[in-house]
Amino acid sequence: MPQDHEYGYFTEEDSADVVIARNANAKDERLKEIMAVLVRKLHEAVKEVEPTQEEWFRAILFLTETGQICNEWRQEYILLSDVLGVSMLVDAINNRKPSGASESTVLGPFHVDDAPELPMGADICLDQKGEPMFVHGHILDTKGNPVENAKIDVWQANDEGFYDVQQKGIQPDFNLRGVFRTGADGRYWFRGVKPKYYPIPDDGPVGKLLGALGRHPYRPAHLHYIITAEGFEPLTTHIFDPDDPYINSDAVFGVKKSLLAEFVKIDDAAAAKTVGLAAPYYDVEFDFVLARRKGA
Amino acid sequence: MPQDHEYGYFTEEDSADVVIARNANAKDERLKEIMAVLVRKLHEAVKEVEPTQEEWFRAILFLTETGQICNEWRQEYILLSDVLGVSMLVDAINNRKPSGASESTVLGPFHVDDAPELPMGADICLDQKGEPMFVHGHILDTKGNPVENAKIDVWQANDEGFYDVQQKGIQPDFNLRGVFRTGADGRYWFRGVKPKYYPIPDDGPVGKLLGALGRHPYRPAHLHYIITAEGFEPLTTHIFDPDDPYINSDAVFGVKKSLLAEFVKIDDAAAAKTVGLAAPYYDVEFDFVLARRKGA
Ligand SMILES: [Cu+2]
Ligand SMILES: [Fe+3]
Ligand SMILES: [Fe+3]
Repeated sequence: MPQDHEYGYFTEEDSADVVIARNANAKDERLKEIMAVLVRKLHEAVKEVEPTQEEWFRAILFLTETGQICNEWRQEYILLSDVLGVSMLVDAINNRKPSGASESTVLGPFHVDDAPELPMGADICLDQKGEPMFVHGHILDTKGNPVENAKIDVWQANDEGFYDVQQKGIQPDFNLRGVFRTGADGRYWFRGVKPKYYPIPDDGPVGKLLGALGRHPYRPAHLHYIITAEGFEPLTTHIFDPDDPYINSDAVFGVKKSLLAEFVKIDDAAAAKTVGLAAPYYDVEFDFVLARRKGA
Repeated sequence: MPQDHEYGYFTEEDSADVVIARNANAKDERLKEIMAVLVRKLHEAVKEVEPTQEEWFRAILFLTETGQICNEWRQEYILLSDVLGVSMLVDAINNRKPSGASESTVLGPFHVDDAPELPMGADICLDQKGEPMFVHGHILDTKGNPVENAKIDVWQANDEGFYDVQQKGIQPDFNLRGVFRTGADGRYWFRGVKPKYYPIPDDGPVGKLLGALGRHPYRPAHLHYIITAEGFEPLTTHIFDPDDPYINSDAVFGVKKSLLAEFVKIDDAAAAKTVGLAAPYYDVEFDFVLARRKGA
């Protein structure tokens, strides 16, 4: 190690090495390793950008404001992570699936833990608002066998793009949420309403950043799922409406090609009757493939 | 560009490219360029670290808390930039000097704009507290010629490591601050007290991080200078006491080898009398070399 590092004196050329050497006594090895990577990449970025003092200070203010707008129900740093693709990247790294298994996407902020368990086929739309939708498919393993007793936790925005928890007193509690369990055939089916795209909160620093980057704040229409079954890796994912105007520009990069469903409009009273809905309705068929738990 | 980019769908492999492509319509070219670098380096860091969801969330909380502790007189994000060596790197990038010119270091938070202009030789210590110090030298150009009418703005912590602005009502206003102007010989001299090391604020998230990294929050004893003269680049720098216990581990990486002064203890009543001080006192001699303004 050159003498300057030992003395801890700063030079432009060795800047990252000087800082990393200073962290040598970190008690936690993992923290030390993480900080070494972050410091190196941060210094690389600064050297490539060559910010002016004013640009540096604007970055300081942006980071400060992003923290200051956070409160009990607003987490602007998660939004920042989302719009920079970091949340999806962390999700991808932590949910690498074997070939053939369904891909994951981000959980999002609107899951609730205590949604009611419902009989298969139930209508999760409690206020009869919106265009009716019939969702169905199978829970399978990677060999195509049905998964019995899989727990399907589903939630979705309504026809105006709002979740129940965003409209307490307007939507019924637990509107458009439900938990279902598969039988031996692995089939699932339930009724809901066609969801609509919605914006992430865009009245803060992250919204301003999106604006400056020429980006909109919208997420294309989707249904959320958490699917769990004994012996399998849990799957947290969405399915998306491929005809949504924002399907190619999800503000948080949640869309994956394999998660595009089809929302088929069916204007046939007899067909509607067989699924307990009024025509016209949307038929959405999607199979989920679970990966076996490693070592299970 | 592969099809997945056009559609804006996320893949782990192409994550940074997908995000950068989405920013293509940024109005400001410089912002677009900065964001491209930051996104690329951030995704590289995440891929190298492979954070768990819990580690990602701890990072989110750290960034949030760092913003939330900021107020009118506390800027924790600047502290974070400081302890990660980023402030010094930005300073270095913006103040590259020709060979032979004095090096810069960070401004720090304790400069005030309206310090009094004093006659050369004045004692900036207004409360007679601490060990007396005589500071002197020359302001020179890179050819060794004296710089006339250079303005020397100097400020320092007291013998307990506090600036006047941190101890309003305890220290006199403008204690240990002064502005001096050189004559034709380029000489400067003034009296003060030997400064002491001091901690950066360490009761917040950055202090906790320093602790976890096995680091202390101290800056070695120093005097601050801003030196300006017509036709020359302004110089913002410190000089340091090389015998300070923290000289090799400045919490903010401000020390450069070329900025080490010598604080020579002189226990000689006659010598002390010639500089208007009582023995023993510290003699600190340091010449500053200014770089000519480009194109001046
Ligand atoms: Cu069908
Ligand atoms: Fe959602
Ligand atoms: Fe200082």
